[in-house]
Amino acid sequence: MKNVKCCRCVKCGKEHAAKPDVTTCDCGGILDVIYDYDYIKTIFDKNTLKHRAEPTMWRFRELLPIEEDTVPKGLRVGMSPLYEVPNIAADLGIQKLYIKDDGVNPTASLKDRASAMAVTKACEAGYDTIACSSTGNAASSLAGNAAKAGLKTYIFVPSRAPKGKIAQLMMFGANLTAVDGSYEETFELSKAAIDKYGWYNRNAAINPYLGEGKKTVAHEMIEQLGFHAPDFVAVSVGDGCTVAGVYKGLYDMYMVGLIDRIPRIISVQAEGCCPINTAVMTDTPWRPQEENTYADSIAVGVPRNPDKAISAIKNSGGICVNVTDDEIREAQKYLARNAGVFGEPAGVTATAGLMKLSREGRLPHDATVVSIVTGNGLKDIDSAIQSAGEPVHCKNDLAEFEAKFGL
Amino acid sequence: MKNVKCCRCVKCGKEHAAKPDVTTCDCGGILDVIYDYDYIKTIFDKNTLKHRAEPTMWRFRELLPIEEDTVPKGLRVGMSPLYEVPNIAADLGIQKLYIKDDGVNPTASLKDRASAMAVTKACEAGYDTIACSSTGNAASSLAGNAAKAGLKTYIFVPSRAPKGKIAQLMMFGANLTAVDGSYEETFELSKAAIDKYGWYNRNAAINPYLGEGKKTVAHEMIEQLGFHAPDFVAVSVGDGCTVAGVYKGLYDMYMVGLIDRIPRIISVQAEGCCPINTAVMTDTPWRPQEENTYADSIAVGVPRNPDKAISAIKNSGGICVNVTDDEIREAQKYLARNAGVFGEPAGVTATAGLMKLSREGRLPHDATVVSIVTGNGLKDIDSAIQSAGEPVHCKNDLAEFEAKFGL
Repeated sequence: MKNVKCCRCVKCGKEHAAKPDVTTCDCGGILDVIYDYDYIKTIFDKNTLKHRAEPTMWRFRELLPIEEDTVPKGLRVGMSPLYEVPNIAADLGIQKLYIKDDGVNPTASLKDRASAMAVTKACEAGYDTIACSSTGNAASSLAGNAAKAGLKTYIFVPSRAPKGKIAQLMMFGANLTAVDGSYEETFELSKAAIDKYGWYNRNAAINPYLGEGKKTVAHEMIEQLGFHAPDFVAVSVGDGCTVAGVYKGLYDMYMVGLIDRIPRIISVQAEGCCPINTAVMTDTPWRPQEENTYADSIAVGVPRNPDKAISAIKNSGGICVNVTDDEIREAQKYLARNAGVFGEPAGVTATAGLMKLSREGRLPHDATVVSIVTGNGLKDIDSAIQSAGEPVHCKNDLAEFEAKFGL
Repeated sequence: MKNVKCCRCVKCGKEHAAKPDVTTCDCGGILDVIYDYDYIKTIFDKNTLKHRAEPTMWRFRELLPIEEDTVPKGLRVGMSPLYEVPNIAADLGIQKLYIKDDGVNPTASLKDRASAMAVTKACEAGYDTIACSSTGNAASSLAGNAAKAGLKTYIFVPSRAPKGKIAQLMMFGANLTAVDGSYEETFELSKAAIDKYGWYNRNAAINPYLGEGKKTVAHEMIEQLGFHAPDFVAVSVGDGCTVAGVYKGLYDMYMVGLIDRIPRIISVQAEGCCPINTAVMTDTPWRPQEENTYADSIAVGVPRNPDKAISAIKNSGGICVNVTDDEIREAQKYLARNAGVFGEPAGVTATAGLMKLSREGRLPHDATVVSIVTGNGLKDIDSAIQSAGEPVHCKNDLAEFEAKFGL
């Protein structure tokens, strides 16, 4: 990989060769993939993208840690729509708002970006089995992308994972374990099994390449905005990998000169589970918290990637905001009804944060904001029906219909 | 619209002006949009597409019935992936197989193509409310696209519609009626209400523009195949609108010279509800049937569009095949595990048909086939879990995990 220099520990700074199955540093620190931006600038600019038809995350391959001759495996991931929503911008009192709907990825979440990367790197390294623990979306995206690439999977989810994600996993033929316990216990069991059986490790944070897949969501929004940096990018935050990936993608685009500044991150967590935001807001080390939110994808009391996440928020001059489950429910309906985008609870949490900041008068009126929807509402139908209610029932009788709708 | 000559009745041949809210002929016949292909050839060819970045169904706008200055409303629909699956082709004993995954559309079904068209035409005509009846996907796609465009909706579904579709409808803020009765009764109630209140009519077949949206799935597959016509296109068939749309799209591409022949349609219905295939196979007029299949989207005993559907199958030199619910369940798992594509039951019915034709030795070994997946499996999770089974449950205990997987 001519574009990649090495993988560097975010804790002790030690440099490691960027092998396709590298994991963490000997000191326990997480690795960051370090690029040779000077080299990349000689082979990649706006024009490269203009003449590239590829409608996937791999259109940014000069900024991705894969070999020059690697043919990416997995499903067709990325290039999700970026919708401008002037009605919502007006409502929130800001100049422009864009919704980046990553719920239309092949397995219906942003995690497809990380899983397509994991599957591609596992193939580069010659593995035939790949494993991970996940709150659900990383798992279902891994199972789908691995099925396409012909790899076997061992996957561990907390038994609380919603039925939609379980259904995907079983359909895709994963060897699926529902762990009776927290996400932390789920992670521990996956680690023990991966250590013993030597499967390719797709655990978030442990595998430094996953965030490099996720960062393409930021590459895309910058290209879709005509290489104008927005003022803020709002992201829901759970284990910290997605927000770190978003920052890395923005940083990439800045380093190769495609934007002139890095947007500020708005980090949104659930009030019932906000260890990363608490650490940033109080400027203290992060501490484990309970997992008290119905937004399952961000119910992560022991985040796997706090260091990169906290740096990302701080380095961008970011804002932290925590929202209640009721505020998430409200945002879910609001976004579906005003943008036509139906996100899962964690998927609309970024928007819930924007709504709260707006109510509190904390968003500048001239701001341009991108809000990322990280997963599709179809993943968790039971909670959606609880929020949105049941339909009116009626026989084939016009009078009954009119009476029920007051027509 | 310079590219459209008129709307012509498929029954009596009478021509009608192509107004944006035209419905059926006075004789009760369904209308077909008639294009001026000689004119279109002067403004549209392979090169037009090569230089068009638009990653949506509207990239084929010269072949679509919208005004030259219309800005399409609704969500970002179309340009769904076309996956080549050599492993499945080998398994079925054919040369090439492609899966067109339309379940990644914004509301997760092919029906988004028709609804984006309906919303665009309703806006052209100046309506503020749009209505339809549907087995579920037309409804949820209408609700989502209308929410994006700022239109109100009245929507009627049979109360048997799966929870995923109901959840979408309620989230998108539709005025939703669940009709305690068959699809036919649901349709009748919607018709009575639309007639009385004058809402824009998005009922399939009644509105001639919907199929013109759906046909873009065929335009896309031809472009994605480099303008080589496949030998067969397999489609699941319910009320007949989708198969008619697919044929129309292939016919368009043939008439403007982008393919040299029209592929043969493989029409797949459920054994428990197959009025269209029965009519073609026995060469008799179609008759109503019971709706005995769990594949809700194609459980249509009284198809709304039998004339166009039967013509499409016959004109293409098509093949009809009926499959059992068990064969659909088998295809659902098979496709998810071997292609990474998780379709809803009706969404995988085309593939179930291919699997059956292959077992019966009815597919030529040198055939190139496209199979369309019309909707995402997340729409109907309960039936998916029934088919694919429940996960293994386990505590955070490696020995227990190993024992349960026999490792």
